[in-house]
Parts: sequence; C-alpha cells; structure tokens
Amino acid sequence: MTKQNISLSVIKRLPKYYRYLESINEKGIIRVSSKELSEITGLTASQIRQDLNHFGCFGQQGYGYNVSELIDELSKIIGVDKTYSMILVGFGNIGHALYKYRSFRDLGYEFKAVFDKNPDFISDATKDDIEILDVKKLRDYLKENKIDIGIIATPKEAAQELADILCEGGVKGIWNFSPVDLKVKNNVVIESVHLDESLFTLTYFMNSPEDFIF
Amino acid sequence: MTKQNISLSVIKRLPKYYRYLESINEKGIIRVSSKELSEITGLTASQIRQDLNHFGCFGQQGYGYNVSELIDELSKIIGVDKTYSMILVGFGNIGHALYKYRSFRDLGYEFKAVFDKNPDFISDATKDDIEILDVKKLRDYLKENKIDIGIIATPKEAAQELADILCEGGVKGIWNFSPVDLKVKNNVVIESVHLDESLFTLTYFMNSPEDFIF
Repeated sequence: MTKQNISLSVIKRLPKYYRYLESINEKGIIRVSSKELSEITGLTASQIRQDLNHFGCFGQQGYGYNVSELIDELSKIIGVDKTYSMILVGFGNIGHALYKYRSFRDLGYEFKAVFDKNPDFISDATKDDIEILDVKKLRDYLKENKIDIGIIATPKEAAQELADILCEGGVKGIWNFSPVDLKVKNNVVIESVHLDESLFTLTYFMNSPEDFIF
Repeated sequence: MTKQNISLSVIKRLPKYYRYLESINEKGIIRVSSKELSEITGLTASQIRQDLNHFGCFGQQGYGYNVSELIDELSKIIGVDKTYSMILVGFGNIGHALYKYRSFRDLGYEFKAVFDKNPDFISDATKDDIEILDVKKLRDYLKENKIDIGIIATPKEAAQELADILCEGGVKGIWNFSPVDLKVKNNVVIESVHLDESLFTLTYFMNSPEDFIF
C-alpha cells in the first residue's frame, strides 16, 4: 500500500466517508456495499471503491465493507485514532463557538489553554472552565508545553504574527479562522476556514445558477 | 463575455481575489499588476490573468488592473453588489458566532430573524437585539417574508427537515453549518461549512506530511 500521488480531492473526501460511516455505525449497520455508500453519499460506487483502494481498504465481492473495520482504517488514515493537544488564540465569537463545540473533544482533540489579548476575557476564566491567558504569554507557554494544533480565531491584523509564534513554538498544525492566507514555516500544516469566501461562493452561485450543479 | 464552462476551482478563487483586492484597496493602492497579485496570493501571474479574463476583467499591458474597478467587477460577479436578507436557524454556539460576525452585515448581508427550538433562547430575545422566534413558526414566517438566504446551524438530526422548509419557503441559498450533506429542491444553492471535515483534513496532513504541498 502506498499513499503517494493521492489527489487533494480524494483526501478531502475521506472525512466525508468517515462521517457517513460513523452515522451508519450509530444505526447498528454492520456491513455496507459501495453501492449503498453511493446512495448515501451521491458519489459513484466505482469512485468510492477507487478512493478507498488508494488507502488499502478493500471491500469483499458480494459482502462489501465491514463498517467498523472501515471506520478503524479511516481513523488511522485521517489520524483521529490519536489524541491532539490544542490551544485556541482569540476568544471572540468564533473562538467561543469553537471552544464550546464539544464533538471535537469527544474525538480526542483536547483544549489545553485559550489565549486572548482582551483582559475582560482573561479575567472571565472561571466561567468557561479553562485557563484564559494573556496572548503575551503565548511564546513562553509553547516553550513549556507541547502543543499539536494551534487554532487562530483573531482579527486578520494579528493572525500572521501569531502564526509565526505558533510555528516557532513547535505546533504541527494550524487551524485558521482568520480571513487571511497565512504563511507558515517548519513544515507546519495549515487548514483555513474562510467564512467570507464560503458566503461569497454561495452568493456567486445564487447569481449564476447556470454554473451550479444541482 | 461568457461565464460558461468555468471550473469550480476558478470560481472558488474569486472570493480570494476579492479579499486581497479589498485589503490592498484599504492601503490606498490604486493599480496592481498580475505579477504583484501573484506575489500576494501565491498563484502564478498567468493563472491570475486567465482567471480574471474568464469574467471579462482585462488588465492593461504595462499598467495592470485598476484596483477599485476590479473590485467593482468582482463584486458584481460574486454578487456582493446586492443586499441579501438572511435568517438563521439554530442559535447555539456556532449560530451565535455567525450572528455576531459583523463583517457580513457591513457587506449587505442582513439578518432578519433568528429561529431556535429552545425557549431559553427565545425569551432571551431582547439581549441580542433581534427577534428570536420559535422554529415552529419558520414555515409561516417564510410565507410572509421574502428571504434570500437561510443559514442552518442546528444539530444534524434537525437539518434536513429545516432545509426542506427553507426550500419550500422560497430561499435561494442555504448556508449549512450542520455536519450533514443536505438535499435541496427548487434549484436552491447550497454551500456547506463542515468544521469536522476541515479539522480531519488538518490532521490527515499532519500525519501524512509527504502529501502536503508546503
């Protein structure tokens, strides 16, 4: 099994497969065929087989995939079989929502600290059951604590400097919610959620329905 | 100028151009060449010219693009030259954050009402300066009010039924934050932000750095 030369679009579909499999697993379904997965996901059965074959997940002819085995395999590939230490920088509206989004924690993503530059949030710490630190302490905190993922949920002006500090501080990945494309160093992986771009994409298709594949 | 046969990847880059142009416009820059845009965006100058040519935005040789003209053109293409009425369904953490994310409003996206099934939120209405209605009233509300965009920020179990009501109620687009792929009718456009998939993509690349293009 090799993972070389796998296209980004295949990789981006893996979390989707994982999500669908989790939901059918919750319903107690033990086996699933690529045809059934096709009906749920809207992808073709042949594409699903091809995607999963890339990662050495082979269904059995006439039997399909064992749901929990496939979930285990996908967990390893996506990396959700491990736990991750996370810090959140920026405790505004989006930061708050991410912090309270419990499903991440159930999957092994654990918040270790929250940083903000606003003293009101800092003194508010007890309310939210986590240490909220002054962002000035971020650099020192990272010297003393091994953190896997840094989440940036600040205004765009602050984001690049914070990304630099996170990279120097040894995080392996940055999950960015600031509306800016960050430059990262030291082979740090970056994944951005650009809400404005998503909303504009929606509006584009609302105005150009001929481009949209329904 | 025709917009036929434009790939999704080109369309997805338009909001990015718009964002970059807005930020250089704020700095008072009047003209920009595709080479300069290339340095900011990380895309090649030839790709940028090609992308913008699709939409009839032609720079002048040796002069480049007029920033504010290009912003105007892109505004029309993306559709942010218009205003949009929006309703939000689900006033939990993510819903709250979206409601308070002010930059949308400055761009002409206006919240008309918020719906939730939780009576605590409903009675809390005055605090947030907007009418928070019982989700049972959604169908009737849409009969009486023309709404362009419905935002779904509910748990996944409720999302499809709400999407059906929004479609029947005449919205043109749904911005979905629920971790489920919704089926829509009546040529309604859908754009989803799947936070879990985004986080899993980050983790995948953290575990498979050989696949990541730095």
